Amino acid sequence: MGGAAFILPIILKIYRNGVNFMNYNISEKFKSLKPSAIREIFKSLGTPGAISFAAGNPNPDSFPVREMREIADEIFDKDASAALQYGITEGYTPLRELIKARLKRVYNIGAPDDELIIVTGGQQGIELTCKVMCNEGDVVLCENPSFIGALNAFRSLGAKLVGVPLNDDGIDVDKLENALKSNPKAKFLYTIPTFQNPAGITTTFEIRKKVLDLAKKYGILILEDNPYGDLRFKGDDVPTYKSLDTDGRVMYCGSFSKVLSAGMRIGFLCGNKELIQKIVVAKQVEDVHTNLMFQMICAKYIEKYDLDKHILEIRDMYRHKAELMISALEENMPKTVSFTRPEGGIFLWCSLPEGASLDQFIKKAGEKNVFVVPGTAFAADPDEPCRSFRLNYSMPSDEEIVKGIKILADICREL
Amino acid sequence: MGGAAFILPIILKIYRNGVNFMNYNISEKFKSLKPSAIREIFKSLGTPGAISFAAGNPNPDSFPVREMREIADEIFDKDASAALQYGITEGYTPLRELIKARLKRVYNIGAPDDELIIVTGGQQGIELTCKVMCNEGDVVLCENPSFIGALNAFRSLGAKLVGVPLNDDGIDVDKLENALKSNPKAKFLYTIPTFQNPAGITTTFEIRKKVLDLAKKYGILILEDNPYGDLRFKGDDVPTYKSLDTDGRVMYCGSFSKVLSAGMRIGFLCGNKELIQKIVVAKQVEDVHTNLMFQMICAKYIEKYDLDKHILEIRDMYRHKAELMISALEENMPKTVSFTRPEGGIFLWCSLPEGASLDQFIKKAGEKNVFVVPGTAFAADPDEPCRSFRLNYSMPSDEEIVKGIKILADICREL
Repeated sequence: MGGAAFILPIILKIYRNGVNFMNYNISEKFKSLKPSAIREIFKSLGTPGAISFAAGNPNPDSFPVREMREIADEIFDKDASAALQYGITEGYTPLRELIKARLKRVYNIGAPDDELIIVTGGQQGIELTCKVMCNEGDVVLCENPSFIGALNAFRSLGAKLVGVPLNDDGIDVDKLENALKSNPKAKFLYTIPTFQNPAGITTTFEIRKKVLDLAKKYGILILEDNPYGDLRFKGDDVPTYKSLDTDGRVMYCGSFSKVLSAGMRIGFLCGNKELIQKIVVAKQVEDVHTNLMFQMICAKYIEKYDLDKHILEIRDMYRHKAELMISALEENMPKTVSFTRPEGGIFLWCSLPEGASLDQFIKKAGEKNVFVVPGTAFAADPDEPCRSFRLNYSMPSDEEIVKGIKILADICREL
Repeated sequence: MGGAAFILPIILKIYRNGVNFMNYNISEKFKSLKPSAIREIFKSLGTPGAISFAAGNPNPDSFPVREMREIADEIFDKDASAALQYGITEGYTPLRELIKARLKRVYNIGAPDDELIIVTGGQQGIELTCKVMCNEGDVVLCENPSFIGALNAFRSLGAKLVGVPLNDDGIDVDKLENALKSNPKAKFLYTIPTFQNPAGITTTFEIRKKVLDLAKKYGILILEDNPYGDLRFKGDDVPTYKSLDTDGRVMYCGSFSKVLSAGMRIGFLCGNKELIQKIVVAKQVEDVHTNLMFQMICAKYIEKYDLDKHILEIRDMYRHKAELMISALEENMPKTVSFTRPEGGIFLWCSLPEGASLDQFIKKAGEKNVFVVPGTAFAADPDEPCRSFRLNYSMPSDEEIVKGIKILADICREL
């Protein structure tokens, strides 16, 4: 009996791998690439009573459902043949024009040689930029920690990641220069300068200017990812890299995921038209174009309603939640635990004291049904030691924030 | 004056490239890759009186607009928070289950070890399969001619294309074996066995069995692209490669673009779960997931309405249009011009007699405001001589078909 139980899986494995199924000789890039830890956590949520600070989701109360329904009906009634048919890869022209106008007005973005393409969420914008820029083995520089979805996109294209530490005022400029010196095959710097994911840090204007100078000196592009830029609830705006761009050096990636709907998958890239033309070719062979009906819904929303007013309401909601989480952390956490105080966006970054075990913390939190994302998920080099974790405040309810932070604080005291 | 007119562009060019703008050191793959000729033609259509046989679009009369509007309203009313929020990369679970059930019922597709993922149109399914399978420099085998969107997707990933001639009964099996022998780095065969794009040819059952045997013998995967399989309007079904698959060797790519809506961008991949797991990782970093609202619309359409009945109506429409085009060709074309007689799908393939110039034909047709796609666009090797062009019959009106074919026939007689 014991013998059969032992042998049967082996026989099945031989049958499975050797006899019955072909051997998949997949690409080198994908042999080691694993699904994002966050998306995997996201899937396993849903146990009753679970408190999740793990998501990167906008609060569903921020979706303008009534308005979108009304617009969708109008399109179905008047323009369904176009909305349901193939469109052009560049994106729905009225939407592109509306975004360009808003970028100019709000961010002073848009030079005469710039062009804009609609992409299937900011994620596609990031991936396409790397695809067009990098051969396998080329280097991408990034903040460390950084957005795992971007890091994995670069890995999936065979690019080599070089992380540059992130300080409280932004990327470490001296270490960036060292990295540029020692990596002549670097093609671009990927950065989330505003309300960074995962750290919630905003790079100062002074550092932005220095980074731009370094990019010029070493001849690399900057991919500026700004999905949270509209969500400032405190402090003053800092100019985007793109608004400071004088030589087509910045590719700007924006998204409607955090201000209208994440599930519709609509983002955009704005950069020099020479590069955007290549991005168009890359997108054409990836998904032909982005869902057209929702591009039209976005355009009509911007035309008919007040997107800026809608964004102000989201800022109020997130200001309240961020302040609540920060107070709860200040009141409950041992002083040895540090955390960032973001002025916008949806994340903050918490660090355990020296000697504490992140693994043990994450495990204990999970046992108490509280979920956070371990900092290791955001590391350019996943083997680096890490004592930090990411907290999201856009999704949990006020009660969950207060209760969940108390639970995490209790665990920290016991570490 | 003449001198200034000569020098000014040069100065501007220096200013543009040398002084003011950075040099984009883009990837080798993208240096030579151009936008699809078809998409470019598609963009320039719209001149009044133009007759286009160039599209690959479904007829907009085939979109179930009323039903989709009704379903969209229901989702906005009852499930908007979910529909507009992030979803899982694998796709909306009810839709995946409904597609699996239909594939089983209609095509006998689906082994216990198979899994299914929703993708952003069949185009993404094709691109993702290549991304997971191929390193830069690996070989992809394809029918010659073949779907340009797929060929460019493979090129965009640095794969090397090796075309195998397509005969009237399907891919040339002997030449396929030669190609397999001389390309040990071949990773998979890309094939559209049913109502092929661009040729309209369906590979016979006998040839499919031989191709599958060769794939086993040489250890390669088959990527079966079947966007038109539901659109048979004549003759008998031929089993898909996937339904004959015994060892997880076939990745099947399907799409709703030709039966519900192309603009919504929803397709699917069905293959061995080991490979689908890698595809999930690849998709996660490409666009996180496919537009969720439209995944839900598809699911509810299949649940509430009769997709098979809807497809029968589309078949009737396309049978009529195909027969009309074939009669017009038979009546008008000189006998030296040959063409395929498809039993389904949306294309047929026309070949000029030996010695005729395709370029001249295309040019003259354009001058008469009739647009077709030159066969060169579909060649694995674009420098190969070609005398064929693709005709689409799903989009033009009956009048346009009759009038346009007469114009093309007149041009052929003058070549």
